[in-house]
Amino acid sequence: MSTYIGIDVGGTNLKAGLVSEDGALLATKKMPLGVWESAEVFAKTLVRLARELLAEYGMSEDSIEAIGVGIPGLVDSAKGIINYTPNIPMREVPITALMQREWDIPIYLGNDANCAALGEYYAGAGRGARSLIVVTLGTGIGSGIVVGGAIHEGFNGAGGEAGHMAIVLGGELCNCGRRGCWERYASATALVRLTKRVMDENPQSLMWKLCGEGEKFHVSGKTAFAAARKGDAAAQAACDEYLDYLAAGVANLVNILQPEMIAIGGGVSNEEDASLLLPLRERVAEVDMARNGAKERTRIVKAQLGNDAGIIGAALLYRSAKMKEERDGVV
Amino acid sequence: MSTYIGIDVGGTNLKAGLVSEDGALLATKKMPLGVWESAEVFAKTLVRLARELLAEYGMSEDSIEAIGVGIPGLVDSAKGIINYTPNIPMREVPITALMQREWDIPIYLGNDANCAALGEYYAGAGRGARSLIVVTLGTGIGSGIVVGGAIHEGFNGAGGEAGHMAIVLGGELCNCGRRGCWERYASATALVRLTKRVMDENPQSLMWKLCGEGEKFHVSGKTAFAAARKGDAAAQAACDEYLDYLAAGVANLVNILQPEMIAIGGGVSNEEDASLLLPLRERVAEVDMARNGAKERTRIVKAQLGNDAGIIGAALLYRSAKMKEERDGVV
Repeated sequence: MSTYIGIDVGGTNLKAGLVSEDGALLATKKMPLGVWESAEVFAKTLVRLARELLAEYGMSEDSIEAIGVGIPGLVDSAKGIINYTPNIPMREVPITALMQREWDIPIYLGNDANCAALGEYYAGAGRGARSLIVVTLGTGIGSGIVVGGAIHEGFNGAGGEAGHMAIVLGGELCNCGRRGCWERYASATALVRLTKRVMDENPQSLMWKLCGEGEKFHVSGKTAFAAARKGDAAAQAACDEYLDYLAAGVANLVNILQPEMIAIGGGVSNEEDASLLLPLRERVAEVDMARNGAKERTRIVKAQLGNDAGIIGAALLYRSAKMKEERDGVV
Repeated sequence: MSTYIGIDVGGTNLKAGLVSEDGALLATKKMPLGVWESAEVFAKTLVRLARELLAEYGMSEDSIEAIGVGIPGLVDSAKGIINYTPNIPMREVPITALMQREWDIPIYLGNDANCAALGEYYAGAGRGARSLIVVTLGTGIGSGIVVGGAIHEGFNGAGGEAGHMAIVLGGELCNCGRRGCWERYASATALVRLTKRVMDENPQSLMWKLCGEGEKFHVSGKTAFAAARKGDAAAQAACDEYLDYLAAGVANLVNILQPEMIAIGGGVSNEEDASLLLPLRERVAEVDMARNGAKERTRIVKAQLGNDAGIIGAALLYRSAKMKEERDGVV
């Protein structure tokens, strides 16, 4: 079975993984991104990380078919260029060519959220589905769309940004500059903000006790769910409000795209099904246009691969590229 | 050049057209849908309409390659079944088989809004684009997504319902039962409702004069735009509010999908570019995620085929089906 390397580039760390063609993660290695020097040094660092991972696992370079790199930003996957990364100073960096100076091997590029979706599609929650959208609830909302084995990147690489659809016209200001974006209401960050607001409005809520005391006082994305499970009414109201926001965006994706499956990832998705997945499904089912006569409905499930989705998906970028190539040949 | 027949099924009329393989409309024929009798009679009526069209044009049945039928409802295009039509009493009707009893020819089925999008893709505004979304502003908002030559129907045929994405959480109640749907704010119907509201708030507005008097008094989707062009401030405010709603949904589609092109159709789209298309583009450009580093941006244009888009797209359904077949072979 062929083996691939996936590299997940984060804002502070680089993570590489050795991945089999069916998406099994054989080994991983992490290193800090470090102080930024130049695109050339960055490319060399990525290749060094890949080589060190291989050496630790005792494999030779010949046994690797391709490397895939997931980038937190905008890439031109066809040309192998990083167009823009908000948190790393890269503009129009021909990363594939720079890496190939060090190691002459096929190299594929993808956006990190799209890589996570691709990983879930081939090796996680989406196995067997023809179309999948992965929604990751974190600092923001990451999302990726995979149809028929290939990432839907948009014609310019900037697609799949479902976190920046407006669900509240003229609503709260998002970091992206738009008002009312879904991620401003349904990310993990938004859940914490909402929880704090409801706590302030309800000084008697159990949520205060669950947050600890003094320096240990800490409101998290779990606070409202934990207190709600213990019967706290204010906490339940906070959860209900959050679920309304989450369901609004999920239902929009369902009505626009009707994917076979939507997988929810990120820390928030670890809540019990009774707290998160089931009420989410109920809310979406009520407004899904497919309820009028379609034989099947989009399944809403939990993502399965956690933080590994990005590495695995990056390693499998060659499969997305191959699908796209064969289709473009057709079209 | 091969010739095809497209039939556009409306709530009151059936329209058929003779269409060349490159999407040119050679002849059309219309007949009333009539009182509903049965699915069998309906199938016979469709075939009779197609045959009469042919006879009038002086063509033989042998010269037709396929028939395509656009249905105002939910279809299973692979199985040739109409699952549900809100305004015609059809449930799980095997229309393709029923029609083929009368005329043994390849028959393709599609949703009417998807057919309109396919028509624009191959023969209208979308020619040359790889991906296109058509948004038709009418009684509601119809929409269709075409990527790489094939309609994106969703895995269950219910996709492409962008009119039913919520842009105002908990907002006005839509006919579909959901609150805050885009079509409730940005359809032609919504524009008329908005215009009336602003007129009521502004008894001195020029809009009142433009609407005629007595029995001729009539508020339309043109009223606000016409008065705004003459400098009426209240009318301009109505237009600006409408444009905000329209742009919200278009920008959501851009951020989720980044199609190469979005074409706006329906009566409202006939307004001058300075009144509609240009301010729409400005609003979308401000929040398009592709503004951060992507080389290209989604082009927003007017649809070109008007009411013929549905007939032409229905006739060209075989092309969408062929693309899908070849892709599914790949996947």
